[in-house]
Amino acid sequence: MALSITLGARTWIERLWSGIADRGRPYADVPGAATPPLDRARLLALALLSERGEASGAAVARELLQVLATLEAGDRAAFRHFLAGNFLPDQATLRAAAEAYLAEPSPERAMALFECAEPPRQELLRRMNMAPGGTAALVALRTELLGGLKRDPALKPLDSDLRHLFASWFNRGFLELRRIDWDTPAAILEKLIRYEAVHEIQGWEDLRRRLAPDRRCFGFFHRALPGEPLIFVEVALVKGLAGAIQPLLALSREAAPQPPPGFDTAIFYSISNCQEGLRGVSFGNFLIKQVVEELKAELPDLRHFSTLSPVPGFCRWLKRRLDRDGNAFTPEERGALAALLPPAQEEREAEAGPPSAAALVEQVTQGEWWRDPAREAALRGPLMRLAAEYLTRPNTGMGAIDPVARFHLGNGARLERINWLGNTAPRGLEESHGMMVNYLYDPDSIEANHEAFTRSGTVARSAAVEAMLAQPRLPAPAGARSRLPRLLGGGEAAASGARENAPS
Amino acid sequence: MALSITLGARTWIERLWSGIADRGRPYADVPGAATPPLDRARLLALALLSERGEASGAAVARELLQVLATLEAGDRAAFRHFLAGNFLPDQATLRAAAEAYLAEPSPERAMALFECAEPPRQELLRRMNMAPGGTAALVALRTELLGGLKRDPALKPLDSDLRHLFASWFNRGFLELRRIDWDTPAAILEKLIRYEAVHEIQGWEDLRRRLAPDRRCFGFFHRALPGEPLIFVEVALVKGLAGAIQPLLALSREAAPQPPPGFDTAIFYSISNCQEGLRGVSFGNFLIKQVVEELKAELPDLRHFSTLSPVPGFCRWLKRRLDRDGNAFTPEERGALAALLPPAQEEREAEAGPPSAAALVEQVTQGEWWRDPAREAALRGPLMRLAAEYLTRPNTGMGAIDPVARFHLGNGARLERINWLGNTAPRGLEESHGMMVNYLYDPDSIEANHEAFTRSGTVARSAAVEAMLAQPRLPAPAGARSRLPRLLGGGEAAASGARENAPS
Amino acid sequence: MALSITLGARTWIERLWSGIADRGRPYADVPGAATPPLDRARLLALALLSERGEASGAAVARELLQVLATLEAGDRAAFRHFLAGNFLPDQATLRAAAEAYLAEPSPERAMALFECAEPPRQELLRRMNMAPGGTAALVALRTELLGGLKRDPALKPLDSDLRHLFASWFNRGFLELRRIDWDTPAAILEKLIRYEAVHEIQGWEDLRRRLAPDRRCFGFFHRALPGEPLIFVEVALVKGLAGAIQPLLALSREAAPQPPPGFDTAIFYSISNCQEGLRGVSFGNFLIKQVVEELKAELPDLRHFSTLSPVPGFCRWLKRRLDRDGNAFTPEERGALAALLPPAQEEREAEAGPPSAAALVEQVTQGEWWRDPAREAALRGPLMRLAAEYLTRPNTGMGAIDPVARFHLGNGARLERINWLGNTAPRGLEESHGMMVNYLYDPDSIEANHEAFTRSGTVARSAAVEAMLAQPRLPAPAGARSRLPRLLGGGEAAASGARENAPS
Amino acid sequence: MALSITLGARTWIERLWSGIADRGRPYADVPGAATPPLDRARLLALALLSERGEASGAAVARELLQVLATLEAGDRAAFRHFLAGNFLPDQATLRAAAEAYLAEPSPERAMALFECAEPPRQELLRRMNMAPGGTAALVALRTELLGGLKRDPALKPLDSDLRHLFASWFNRGFLELRRIDWDTPAAILEKLIRYEAVHEIQGWEDLRRRLAPDRRCFGFFHRALPGEPLIFVEVALVKGLAGAIQPLLALSREAAPQPPPGFDTAIFYSISNCQEGLRGVSFGNFLIKQVVEELKAELPDLRHFSTLSPVPGFCRWLKRRLDRDGNAFTPEERGALAALLPPAQEEREAEAGPPSAAALVEQVTQGEWWRDPAREAALRGPLMRLAAEYLTRPNTGMGAIDPVARFHLGNGARLERINWLGNTAPRGLEESHGMMVNYLYDPDSIEANHEAFTRSGTVARSAAVEAMLAQPRLPAPAGARSRLPRLLGGGEAAASGARENAPS
Repeated sequence: MALSITLGARTWIERLWSGIADRGRPYADVPGAATPPLDRARLLALALLSERGEASGAAVARELLQVLATLEAGDRAAFRHFLAGNFLPDQATLRAAAEAYLAEPSPERAMALFECAEPPRQELLRRMNMAPGGTAALVALRTELLGGLKRDPALKPLDSDLRHLFASWFNRGFLELRRIDWDTPAAILEKLIRYEAVHEIQGWEDLRRRLAPDRRCFGFFHRALPGEPLIFVEVALVKGLAGAIQPLLALSREAAPQPPPGFDTAIFYSISNCQEGLRGVSFGNFLIKQVVEELKAELPDLRHFSTLSPVPGFCRWLKRRLDRDGNAFTPEERGALAALLPPAQEEREAEAGPPSAAALVEQVTQGEWWRDPAREAALRGPLMRLAAEYLTRPNTGMGAIDPVARFHLGNGARLERINWLGNTAPRGLEESHGMMVNYLYDPDSIEANHEAFTRSGTVARSAAVEAMLAQPRLPAPAGARSRLPRLLGGGEAAASGARENAPS
Repeated sequence: MALSITLGARTWIERLWSGIADRGRPYADVPGAATPPLDRARLLALALLSERGEASGAAVARELLQVLATLEAGDRAAFRHFLAGNFLPDQATLRAAAEAYLAEPSPERAMALFECAEPPRQELLRRMNMAPGGTAALVALRTELLGGLKRDPALKPLDSDLRHLFASWFNRGFLELRRIDWDTPAAILEKLIRYEAVHEIQGWEDLRRRLAPDRRCFGFFHRALPGEPLIFVEVALVKGLAGAIQPLLALSREAAPQPPPGFDTAIFYSISNCQEGLRGVSFGNFLIKQVVEELKAELPDLRHFSTLSPVPGFCRWLKRRLDRDGNAFTPEERGALAALLPPAQEEREAEAGPPSAAALVEQVTQGEWWRDPAREAALRGPLMRLAAEYLTRPNTGMGAIDPVARFHLGNGARLERINWLGNTAPRGLEESHGMMVNYLYDPDSIEANHEAFTRSGTVARSAAVEAMLAQPRLPAPAGARSRLPRLLGGGEAAASGARENAPS
Repeated sequence: MALSITLGARTWIERLWSGIADRGRPYADVPGAATPPLDRARLLALALLSERGEASGAAVARELLQVLATLEAGDRAAFRHFLAGNFLPDQATLRAAAEAYLAEPSPERAMALFECAEPPRQELLRRMNMAPGGTAALVALRTELLGGLKRDPALKPLDSDLRHLFASWFNRGFLELRRIDWDTPAAILEKLIRYEAVHEIQGWEDLRRRLAPDRRCFGFFHRALPGEPLIFVEVALVKGLAGAIQPLLALSREAAPQPPPGFDTAIFYSISNCQEGLRGVSFGNFLIKQVVEELKAELPDLRHFSTLSPVPGFCRWLKRRLDRDGNAFTPEERGALAALLPPAQEEREAEAGPPSAAALVEQVTQGEWWRDPAREAALRGPLMRLAAEYLTRPNTGMGAIDPVARFHLGNGARLERINWLGNTAPRGLEESHGMMVNYLYDPDSIEANHEAFTRSGTVARSAAVEAMLAQPRLPAPAGARSRLPRLLGGGEAAASGARENAPS
Repeated sequence: MALSITLGARTWIERLWSGIADRGRPYADVPGAATPPLDRARLLALALLSERGEASGAAVARELLQVLATLEAGDRAAFRHFLAGNFLPDQATLRAAAEAYLAEPSPERAMALFECAEPPRQELLRRMNMAPGGTAALVALRTELLGGLKRDPALKPLDSDLRHLFASWFNRGFLELRRIDWDTPAAILEKLIRYEAVHEIQGWEDLRRRLAPDRRCFGFFHRALPGEPLIFVEVALVKGLAGAIQPLLALSREAAPQPPPGFDTAIFYSISNCQEGLRGVSFGNFLIKQVVEELKAELPDLRHFSTLSPVPGFCRWLKRRLDRDGNAFTPEERGALAALLPPAQEEREAEAGPPSAAALVEQVTQGEWWRDPAREAALRGPLMRLAAEYLTRPNTGMGAIDPVARFHLGNGARLERINWLGNTAPRGLEESHGMMVNYLYDPDSIEANHEAFTRSGTVARSAAVEAMLAQPRLPAPAGARSRLPRLLGGGEAAASGARENAPS
């Protein structure tokens, strides 16, 4: 392979070289300081693929990275285009291999075809990686590239090659799981504050609370990106499933809170990818499952492993759902909601006709509706039922599945509980009327759940969630709400039977 | 890409599965303990590529490795064939992509063709790597495979995929250079003793001497193979170029010898690859150049960096050379050599005609000829001249270039000096009549040397070596030998002018 | 020694024991859970000195520390009195040894006397130290003790023993110097914020700035107090002597400021002891000198090592000085200051007589006087001259020497420069009218400076400071102030000639 | 304290100084290169106690250590005498403090007396410790000193001060327990080979076997002696009490033997102090007990912790015992032994009278008697009974207790089993006729055992040992021997009931 690529490459390398470098300069000469930086970068990239690159080890790669670091934004974009538009497989060779394969599709010829088809760009990127800091530079290259990919599909081949290499390099077998706590260097902790994507960290006090003895935090690291978490997950040790996020995020009055007596559950309440440039390389599934193993070994009393997750797509879906189906609410539900509108509004309605279901919900959920017992009670039943519908409908039609649901269900988790008023922060109310979800990771059923979900879109769910789907469309009995939060430490369970259906 | 592979793969995976597993068992079920181990290994490999593999994190990979570890040799061979003979790209898809490319050879279609052509086997191997110890298991797999590759070319596709992955995974950017000394864990030091391939380490005392303060040892390590050096190099700090190996290997009477006063040269006297399974993945070039940088930083007084290397192919080549060319020796040389034969032999010769040049050399180099001043003096001139010829002739015709020469010249080193009686151990005498060579690594000329060698086979050489080629075919002046060893600490320089031609 | 102590000790141990423990319980029995905690602590302390303590390794010590940790404040105080009031050397033995020494004061008898005189309390404290966390517990014990020592001199023997042990245990040879930077664990960094005693750290942003690449921070650690700095020093890398603290403390707009071009000076701008319980054990002198060595090795360009220090005793001294000596100001100075008072005040003065010099200074330095060019100019000359007097007068009479001056001069530093308006924070103005001082650590003169200071109280000083003492009592030339801050990066030099007198 | 010492010290320091240094040279001047090294060392020691020592931090200490390292043996001895003969407490001050105490023996005056009595030598040694490598130099100083202490009692005060300081510095709380295994740096492992004092390590292969997975090795380290074990213990994991050492020391044919199935016992078969200079500072007791805790935590299946120990004093004692008491053997025993002598010898006896008991034993144990079933059987009963007597007799009269017994019994261990033919190496046969002993460390009885042993010399023992003492003086039943070794894995138990009396 190497030979054919190199021989094939030489021709176009020389052509490109002479197109960039001054005439009369010897081939493969070091581009002088007078050469414009962008041209130097291009020539160094060519040199790196040539014999010079082979001989000089990482020296040319290092020089190339240094030049790249000095390029201005426009030149960097031009260099990305240079990479994306060149370094293709040799056309004649590939054509011959394709014809040979078509003539006789043997394993040997398939292999030969594969080897000819690999673009020399991949070898170039591998050689750039040899310099100190090479991996970080390539990840940064892709970060910038992804920003413009949609506008500029010509960059796709470069993106594809980078993703291919990263998927191989950042293979699970090369990642190191590290516990992150208050003894971790500040330079790494600082990055948690920057990268946290689910529940913003408000500063060092907030961070400290998330690393207290009743919490755990783990991240994947790769030795070529020292000091850089690739992904991290935050875990709370609690008793029973946690149904609401605000109590978990509240700053503790104690200096270093201990796990509660009788704690039996690890709640994964935040998981954040850190490296935009590694988009598409999957870490989360491995991280959660590895952390489950670590926690089991450290804390044998833990019996349940569950997320407390947002439902980012619910409100968007609900609006479309209500618009489409006038009977999404039962008449009783509709009546109860309409009764909450001010009289003046009723008059206006008399003129304009009754509001649509979507409009009704919008009006009822103005302001801090969840602090108003009447509105909260009227909304709870129908919204939770529709959330159950949203999260369990087959993975087809009517818009994509909720992205967080897809991630955890695809990992083999089970939809365990839907929590009313689990997140009363503005974003939670806006996205999902404050609902949060527990996805349960039960090692014994992960494979079956995953397979059912992948093959047929079937969503594994607890009996409590199942019951919500089947239940007569009636509001939940009064009083239920006041009883449950005590048990759950905040928020409210999917149904009064939630406790019985807790994972065992 | 992932989708088309998976979809395409499913068909043949299912077919293979049903061929191995009991009828009636549900697809992707865990193979039971009753299944024969080889079948379990096959089924787990298939499961690893299926959805189960995606869901279960590294669990299926771990199980597969455990089963593999229990297989007997025959079953392991069968499993390698199973891997090599299956997991091909989907034929229909690849055919379509090949046709599409031929119809319009655009960059996008080249990329699509490349993605279809990647055999699912590579993905399988990447997933096997996710388990703890996965990389070591794959390296071991290739070690076994290489043993039978020549006999069994059907294994080539598997070998090709493994080499391709290893070249990417063991990229220079992912290697860690570590100094190895007497503070290194014994578990690693023990491996030096096992892996040393050039000058055998005779036990812990010998090892200790090679790690004394006047020596350096460095190795590359990879975090997925903890405690395993990939390659290591042994270095002696000396004054002037060292020309003979025995003084360097001699056990010192001092507990921990210090570098000699005025030391200015680092002699790389042994470099050993450790992992047979990584054959074809190149480390040596990077290692030498990195170690030069490390040594420069630690010891600013060092001015020369050179090997002291064997010439493994010289005697083999010499025999052919003498057989082919009756005039390889001058008449004087020939006369001087013939005069060394015992009289009885001369008589026999009178009958049979004079011996051939090759036979003459063979007879003169019987026993410990190098301790006999007459024989040593007569051989020195002609053999050194022919060694210079052997090492500098263009890289074509008459047998391959010496492998050690090819490695260092290919790295851009210069043929600096040929040392007479540099290695009087049996192997040294047998391979090269005791000659050793200094290849000099001069950072300023490495790239040019490499390029000249790669492009035209030109061997960079010192003026002293050049002079040997041009010199009249006369024996060296008497007395030269007795003077030099004192300067060089043993062995003898290429010519009396060697000192003047030492690197500067 | 051990025998006599043990035998002597047994008697009073048994007496004490029977006074605390229930009658009828066997000697050395484990105090039961029913025993009040304070009694358990006392009995465990006795047991620790008995054979049980010898046999059980660290077990009794561990138990004692556990009980101590549960004691309430009152009981802890009682336990300290128990330690201080008992565990004395055996009276009969000591008396005999004293008499023997007086009879014949031989070295042997002096040694015997010393051994008898060592209170068993020291052995008890050494045994308490054997438990995990023992050292920390003993340091905490002394911290509490020091709080009440003045009120309660009966605790002095315990304090004396603890200090004696700590001085031996925290010997320089057992301390580890560690660089502290942004890669240090947050749990340690947090303690810098807590312990900083000179210029308060305002939070993590402020801390981060003090650990940026143009700064250095080092601390001493001891392995028995893991994660606990004993003392730390903060250093700024600057060009020329820094004369003012506010520019050094200002938050930088750059993410991580680099040392300024041409930096040649390390300014030690803050040094804080961390462990109150180690009061009287000296670390600062060693720390500064060791850090000078470290910095020299890391940054060969550094040529000067100096503090930027407060003058905490100046204003207090100045008031007494002015009260005592009506002619502390020249008539011109006095006139210039008086002219700054408002006319109304002059009238009042006409009645009451002119204000005293001290009152004059007090009135002129109301409010933000240092922003008022007239007041600032009038004060500068006389106050700087008097500061020079304050810092250089012999170490006798009229109150103690300034404590910061005593520390650095005692270490052998030289009084290099007095900086006008070096610290305009409230505390700096209140303590020293804003003046700060550079004490220069010049390795070549440290020993001589120290000896002169220790023997005769002579203060080593630069020519610039010397000149201030000798100068005619005239205000500094107008305009000087506006010129200097530019050179010095803030603040103002001791005299216009300061630049010339900078360390060379 | 510091003040009085310093003031008191100055006088004699000055006197000493002027006795050594050239007249006319300023006090405390740096001794020039022309000064003889011994005088330089003396002057630097004096300087170190003077102000120079206070000011210059560790610089003078470092210089002193450097000079000491260059001294020849005679000068080093002279320097030790210089230290031992000077640096005494000031006589007048101490006299006054002694008189004051005698006048009123209050706690305050006792404290004052103690402080005056501390010889300035201790402060000098503490200051020597401040230099890098100071602790190692002081330990080496005492090592040399101990070699000559008996001949030269004038060195005692220096020895006493060093021991006093070391006991404080090497307090258990400052030691670090480290596991030593095949991943330990070779530089440390090499020291195990050198320091092993009980069963010599025959080289790296032997060492490797002692660090295999069925073994454990732990040592104490102190951070001021990096890379130097202070003491280490070797442990074998076995099933049941091991009674013989040879099987434990045998090189294994397996690469890395695993613990035997069902292992339940940790055998401490070798414990070696490493630093002669720390003689008298006790580590062994702490080490054994800490290692018991470590092993319990790592291997919860372990139920017994026992030594396998030599009995170095048995043969010496036995000879005296037999000489003194003609009836040490029963007539039957005596007859059985006599019957083993060759007939010729009997004749000689007829003339000379029967041999003494001691002579009889000596004659019967000629050669490899233990391989001769008749002799072995006749000796077994009486020797084991007498060994039990030797090891259990009260700690008084007839020579000292066996030193190994005293150590373990003093630690609170129990004499568990006496093993016949436990060590058939020459040294074992010579010291104890091949017997070895198990001392059992049972955490529940350690304190009581220790106290009984310390107070009254009572030796805790198992029922099996007790039975041996009481048994009729009869040889053990034939056949017993052939049965037991199988159970015990080599060697033979104290009695046939040994298994029942195994620790439970």
